[in-house]
Amino acid sequence: MAGYNLEAIEAAPLKEDVDIVIPTIRNLDFLEQWRPFLKHYHLIIVQDGDPSINIRVPEGYDYELYNRNDINRILGPRANCISYKDGGCRCFGFMVSKKKYIYTIDDDCFVAKDPSGKEINVIAQHIKNLETPSTPHYFNTLYDPFRDGTDFVRGYPFSLREGVPTAISHGLWLNIPDYDAPTQLVKPRERNIRYVDAVMTIPKGVLYPMCGMNLAFNRELIGPAMYFGLMGEGQPISRYDDMWAGWAAKVVCDHLGFGVKTGLPYVWHSKASNPFVNLKKEHKGLHWQEEMVPFFQNLRLSKESDTAAKCYMELSKRTKEKLTEVDPYFENLADAMVAWIEAWEELNPPVDGKDVKASDKN
Amino acid sequence: MAGYNLEAIEAAPLKEDVDIVIPTIRNLDFLEQWRPFLKHYHLIIVQDGDPSINIRVPEGYDYELYNRNDINRILGPRANCISYKDGGCRCFGFMVSKKKYIYTIDDDCFVAKDPSGKEINVIAQHIKNLETPSTPHYFNTLYDPFRDGTDFVRGYPFSLREGVPTAISHGLWLNIPDYDAPTQLVKPRERNIRYVDAVMTIPKGVLYPMCGMNLAFNRELIGPAMYFGLMGEGQPISRYDDMWAGWAAKVVCDHLGFGVKTGLPYVWHSKASNPFVNLKKEHKGLHWQEEMVPFFQNLRLSKESDTAAKCYMELSKRTKEKLTEVDPYFENLADAMVAWIEAWEELNPPVDGKDVKASDKN
Repeated sequence: MAGYNLEAIEAAPLKEDVDIVIPTIRNLDFLEQWRPFLKHYHLIIVQDGDPSINIRVPEGYDYELYNRNDINRILGPRANCISYKDGGCRCFGFMVSKKKYIYTIDDDCFVAKDPSGKEINVIAQHIKNLETPSTPHYFNTLYDPFRDGTDFVRGYPFSLREGVPTAISHGLWLNIPDYDAPTQLVKPRERNIRYVDAVMTIPKGVLYPMCGMNLAFNRELIGPAMYFGLMGEGQPISRYDDMWAGWAAKVVCDHLGFGVKTGLPYVWHSKASNPFVNLKKEHKGLHWQEEMVPFFQNLRLSKESDTAAKCYMELSKRTKEKLTEVDPYFENLADAMVAWIEAWEELNPPVDGKDVKASDKN
Repeated sequence: MAGYNLEAIEAAPLKEDVDIVIPTIRNLDFLEQWRPFLKHYHLIIVQDGDPSINIRVPEGYDYELYNRNDINRILGPRANCISYKDGGCRCFGFMVSKKKYIYTIDDDCFVAKDPSGKEINVIAQHIKNLETPSTPHYFNTLYDPFRDGTDFVRGYPFSLREGVPTAISHGLWLNIPDYDAPTQLVKPRERNIRYVDAVMTIPKGVLYPMCGMNLAFNRELIGPAMYFGLMGEGQPISRYDDMWAGWAAKVVCDHLGFGVKTGLPYVWHSKASNPFVNLKKEHKGLHWQEEMVPFFQNLRLSKESDTAAKCYMELSKRTKEKLTEVDPYFENLADAMVAWIEAWEELNPPVDGKDVKASDKN
């Protein structure tokens, strides 16, 4: 293919279709190391905290940056659905993107190496995960059957081998594992050094703890359900932004017939956050998760909810009905979920036939 | 610990509690290579095919061997529940064992190496899998939380961290993957070279294709549900013996609150069976699995079925009710399932308080 830079295409797949969303409170020097893999992509930076601080972005990157003043200006009274002083503010970036795929990453994550010593191209792997089907209805013991060198094993029904569209690709972390504060306190020196060379579908009906550190998803399929909740300043809870999004999005994926994958690619997670600070941020969540998880496990959405946005509106109603008895906070959260969907639809007006329904994809 | 051979203990954990069951039609020269890992264990060899053939077992192994004449003598009229000319005959060995754990392996499987070049001690890994709990109610993204160097990640409910007793440990295969005949035909050269360094629980409510090549289980918890069906000579189907056992045992585990793990340890699977022969053996199974899998997926056992044996009796009734319309074969299978349980109970009379109920273990 004369005239094409094949290496760049290989290194930066679908660069017109992917936005990278980064929530931050500091200069983005971490992007220097990511340059070989991320330089071709457009960045959406969501600046958390004091909007008067000037965030430095390494030269050569193409980006747009939103601080709290921008969020308030763009969303008006609905801006309070976006968390302040919490990484959950990243979901504002999902809303203003116009791309098919989002990749979101934390600014304390760096390029990891595979066991052969090769640097891992996170986006290439996430795109592979998202562009191949998921298999949520039956477990394949050799993991993702759509990877090179593997397939469906004996005893896998043929009617299930087409799979379903993949909506979410959840990547993992070497070095500092994503533990809660009590586990951090008990195992301060534990490091994740095990590179598990697998991608797999999380089966239908099964919940998992989705971490926002290294996460990609198909905005068209599941964007409206990727709301990172109401956390941080003024709220009784933090560090459950990604968990809330993960539980909700998984239930919506299961309902709409979309798949969720976890496993590769890894990033190198450089620093453990302070466990005592985390304990304070988490303590209500550690308690409430015992109610939130069964709530999502038992949730059955109605047939009428046939898009991610409609599912999410129904979910906000159920949240108000069922979780407000756990704490009045969930009433505010339910209202914020409605504001989030209204804002999403204002910024992403459904074009005729463009609103993705489950039936279009199955 | 003076006087103890620590290396042997490490190499052969729980040797008084494990029987190794091997179905075969040939001399067991493959055991030579396994000597460092298997020599301490008692073998139960189930000789398939012509009983007049003399099977050679490498010297130094402690074993009992049963041929078809033995099976007929021991089980009498119920002997027809044990398959003939099919690897499914191995389940006879499960029945005559008196040990807590069974490890069963095919005679074309050899010692595999991990990526560091170290030979894998399959039994040590299976015992680890079986002696640590499973986590079927929620997915842990760092895989088995009971492995060294890992734990439950942030967002994992504390009430679920005790897990449930593990009943089954399903090991994998390097080199020749366990494909069905159509996939073998399409991909004759595909080899599994990917060592995935993970063990994981297959979640509750999710079925998987259980392969009998490299399989361990807790006989006390799940033995009666580990029936390898009616296959081989005189039957319309082969190569679904382990699949049938896997679907049934998974449903029974889910009902009784036991866990199923898959992943490590690997064996080296040396030779692909003939895909044309396999196609003939499998062709009805390839068709019927489209009915069998939904049958098991939709099965709900009654509360009264609170042991593996009772669950299996109920399953035989449902098989007759629901699958006989697929083919009259399933009526014979359902009858054989009853004969299997009757024979199991005759050979393993329930001692007071020894019959394991779900409530004892949860």
